Amino acid sequence: MLIDKLVKKIKTLNAPIVVGLDPRLSQIPGYIKDAVYEAQEKTPEAAAEIILTFNQAIIDSVCDIVPAVKPQIAMYEQYGAAGISCYFRTVEYAKSKGLIVIGDIKRGDIASTAEAYSNAHIGMTNIEGEEFTASTDFITVNPYMGYDSIEPYLSDCKKHDKGLFVLVKTSNPSSSQIQDLKTADERPVYAHVGDLVSEWGRGLIGESGFSNIGAVVGATHPEEGKILRDAMPHTFFLVPGYGAQGGKAADLSGMLNKDGLGIIVNNSRGITGAFLSEKYKSNEKDFAQAARAAVLDMKADLEANL
Amino acid sequence: MLIDKLVKKIKTLNAPIVVGLDPRLSQIPGYIKDAVYEAQEKTPEAAAEIILTFNQAIIDSVCDIVPAVKPQIAMYEQYGAAGISCYFRTVEYAKSKGLIVIGDIKRGDIASTAEAYSNAHIGMTNIEGEEFTASTDFITVNPYMGYDSIEPYLSDCKKHDKGLFVLVKTSNPSSSQIQDLKTADERPVYAHVGDLVSEWGRGLIGESGFSNIGAVVGATHPEEGKILRDAMPHTFFLVPGYGAQGGKAADLSGMLNKDGLGIIVNNSRGITGAFLSEKYKSNEKDFAQAARAAVLDMKADLEANL
Repeated sequence: MLIDKLVKKIKTLNAPIVVGLDPRLSQIPGYIKDAVYEAQEKTPEAAAEIILTFNQAIIDSVCDIVPAVKPQIAMYEQYGAAGISCYFRTVEYAKSKGLIVIGDIKRGDIASTAEAYSNAHIGMTNIEGEEFTASTDFITVNPYMGYDSIEPYLSDCKKHDKGLFVLVKTSNPSSSQIQDLKTADERPVYAHVGDLVSEWGRGLIGESGFSNIGAVVGATHPEEGKILRDAMPHTFFLVPGYGAQGGKAADLSGMLNKDGLGIIVNNSRGITGAFLSEKYKSNEKDFAQAARAAVLDMKADLEANL
Repeated sequence: MLIDKLVKKIKTLNAPIVVGLDPRLSQIPGYIKDAVYEAQEKTPEAAAEIILTFNQAIIDSVCDIVPAVKPQIAMYEQYGAAGISCYFRTVEYAKSKGLIVIGDIKRGDIASTAEAYSNAHIGMTNIEGEEFTASTDFITVNPYMGYDSIEPYLSDCKKHDKGLFVLVKTSNPSSSQIQDLKTADERPVYAHVGDLVSEWGRGLIGESGFSNIGAVVGATHPEEGKILRDAMPHTFFLVPGYGAQGGKAADLSGMLNKDGLGIIVNNSRGITGAFLSEKYKSNEKDFAQAARAAVLDMKADLEANL
């Protein structure tokens, strides 16, 4: 099962790390952009070409030391159809390099609409008998609409061995406004969402003891993370918020089970933008090597502090 | 302000109706599909062309009797980049016919990611100084991540006179799982979300007394709708769930203010698929006229029962 493959890769590489691919033109080396702009106008198509070139180099540079990448679709969607094409080409390229791909799409809708999202990302779109299969392994989804907004994805997860990471307790400060509301039984809303996610994942548990249906739990909430780990022993956590948002490796230990497993930690700008930071600052042509160095440093940080 | 324009159009046309454009190939007349398939393979590009042709005919047929259309992006996203191109061309076409466009995208993410979504749909994407402006008027968004996931849109709403409909109490049965959780103060989660939406919209209230920041409240929840109307006097409601999902016109009266205003009711398949129903069944070539007849019947139903 997919989740077992992820767990195995994390163990083999000793790297519970996912590289976030959230490209910003302002954080892409000038020489890549100049080469594209020499040949064409500054259009969404040009932006998409620049981003794909950048992503491919990052993927080439880290694909043997991390199990997964996580493209954030919003950063592509802002370039319209050209951006979406670039997003799916990034997914395909990462898959061709043996990486597990977590599509950070945070979609949430019901019934046939959720089905259409599922077709697009983890299932299959059928055009009068012609089948177009989606390549992404996991997607992130939003639970606010309840089971109706999850069920259509679960069918595809079963059928095509795919997975979800459902938002439970997110890393941003105002996640408290709704997620931390205390309910009548004294528990916060996110704990109830956690219960639902466990329930939804029950039929999809692999040999590793984890389910293809995971949860998003922010690195910035170590206490909540520990409570959720205890309440959700079969749920794998996708953990954003490390680095740039202030989450530290030591904060994550409560999210691990007794085998030291259960999380994959995202880092986006800290890796893809490493070449711009004081620590790795070097020739912009070495951006991919800087990304690799940042992954290795993150690996060491997690090893030392988890 | 945008919301005032919407309110004025609803009054002038006496039609608090938005036509949902959620195209399904199985509900598009065969002769439109055959014409496209004669010239090309059954690809996402062909599907996109079929859908655009269908949408344009529907828009032509209803643009003088309804204030707005609401394309549901999931139904386009399943056709990849070609589908997204079709989505944005549908938005442009509806705008060119004088319609207000509500992009049903239900996005929800934080900080620079939400900004990217906002750029794509209601703001502007800047490519090294070249500006690409988005055409959609309102978008639907998901509040689960709190203010951090709303703030970037609010900036664009102020700057470009755009609007939001934030999910508060959705029409689907399992909306109860999270939205109806009773909190410590005895009120359900959705009531707290309603408070937040009122607060977020405070700076964007127009002459009509309504804010550019609206709420999604399902037609299937008349009691909750009334409570929310009383609690949110300045918030306009986008109301899904009429017709196919079981919501009736009489259920909506509690969502109106004393002037009989405050809602716009969505109908998707009931209008675009009218040509397939027993009531309107006719030659498939008359699908656009059947859609118009269905709008007029819905208008009469709302008039009689609100």
